[in-house]
Amino acid sequence: MHPSSDPPGRRTWVIPEGYIPQDDDGGEQDPRFRGHETACVLNCGDRDASLAITLYFADREPAGPYRVRVPARRTLHLRFNDLDDPEPVPRETDYASVIESDVPVVVQHTRLDSRRQALALLSTMAWST
Amino acid sequence: MHPSSDPPGRRTWVIPEGYIPQDDDGGEQDPRFRGHETACVLNCGDRDASLAITLYFADREPAGPYRVRVPARRTLHLRFNDLDDPEPVPRETDYASVIESDVPVVVQHTRLDSRRQALALLSTMAWST
Amino acid sequence: MHPSSDPPGRRTWVIPEGYIPQDDDGGEQDPRFRGHETACVLNCGDRDASLAITLYFADREPAGPYRVRVPARRTLHLRFNDLDDPEPVPRETDYASVIESDVPVVVQHTRLDSRRQALALLSTMAWST
Amino acid sequence: MHPSSDPPGRRTWVIPEGYIPQDDDGGEQDPRFRGHETACVLNCGDRDASLAITLYFADREPAGPYRVRVPARRTLHLRFNDLDDPEPVPRETDYASVIESDVPVVVQHTRLDSRRQALALLSTMAWST
Repeated sequence: MHPSSDPPGRRTWVIPEGYIPQDDDGGEQDPRFRGHETACVLNCGDRDASLAITLYFADREPAGPYRVRVPARRTLHLRFNDLDDPEPVPRETDYASVIESDVPVVVQHTRLDSRRQALALLSTMAWST
Repeated sequence: MHPSSDPPGRRTWVIPEGYIPQDDDGGEQDPRFRGHETACVLNCGDRDASLAITLYFADREPAGPYRVRVPARRTLHLRFNDLDDPEPVPRETDYASVIESDVPVVVQHTRLDSRRQALALLSTMAWST
Repeated sequence: MHPSSDPPGRRTWVIPEGYIPQDDDGGEQDPRFRGHETACVLNCGDRDASLAITLYFADREPAGPYRVRVPARRTLHLRFNDLDDPEPVPRETDYASVIESDVPVVVQHTRLDSRRQALALLSTMAWST
Repeated sequence: MHPSSDPPGRRTWVIPEGYIPQDDDGGEQDPRFRGHETACVLNCGDRDASLAITLYFADREPAGPYRVRVPARRTLHLRFNDLDDPEPVPRETDYASVIESDVPVVVQHTRLDSRRQALALLSTMAWST
């Protein structure tokens, strides 16, 4: 385990890629296979993390901040599909995200695309300065 | 939101992998599923970004620069398929790209391959010094 | 080959994303196609590496450390599915992992998902400070 | 274009993940869809790059160096399947690779898996100190 003084992580993370298909998802009934865009956040420190997420678009001003909490020593696999305050994430729309935290965290971006029955996956670490 | 003095990002990004299949795309009619190679660029600062993209090949001199603009506080999911000035990106040809910006941006590389009906996805952050 | 004094690597690696489906794996019989979550570890130095892996969850305290050894000049493609001491990795449960090594190593995260017959793959370098 | 004095890149790159299926590839006839493990190397400087690739395994000493040249201002999408001097890369065997260059280059790892007809893709930047 990590000493509380020095958990690995950064306070700002950037994910330039984002896209959520229409919710119908090809008639998928099983929630495990429903398509989603996820930011996997790990807070391995001893203080709860308060995140502020800002979404950027191609042709309008940014949306947010979306407020999310990740408790100490916990991971949150946050689905962008579920964000709805201050506004839902528009479907079939290119977006990008910046995640700011008040304590160090690590963020990985993952997408499951199930529109064509066969699953497709992508993942990459988010970018941090 | 970020203070305009210090938006996260870098001015030079490198994507060694690039390959665009033939345009026919297996007869795909729906543009959402058409295969593409994308550089997702986020400019979360308060100044517009002017990009200069250079393409490198296996056996000829580089092409470019391709000039692209990403406005302040906007993201551009740029499809290499659409670049055509000074010349189109050749199909079925290995290439690599270097993206230079006059202000800090963040770049993520994504490919959607739909040649076999089932989708395949890859994504990674571009590399920056 | 690398001089033993300076093998490339880091001592702490973070993988925020983790998820293992139910073991049945859609009736897959061929072990090559069985779904798995993997941490590919390379120890290219001249001293054996002792790893301590800690798993983080959404709603309980972390598990571990899991102890794993990677000999000098060897790679280990470690399947999280196989970890069982001090406890198995729960299925269908979001988790994250931190890998700590006593010598420098490099870690890449890969998932093969075969739940829908068609394979889906993701991979990214783990994150290191 | 980049001034020759300062091309972006690094001299050492690490890819912990590597695995080449059996060559039969499910009877695939079309070379574009044949499965492969690739290291995409970009040399955007003005001097040719001489690469030395070392392969690491789970249970034997490393193989190599494999010698590869990437000319100035060129990219090489190198298929590990094609390496055969000093020895072919064993099939169905976990391996890892370290790529050392005498000038700065950038390396991205990509795998196309076509064993199940539907394509699966993964990609990530290689790791550099």
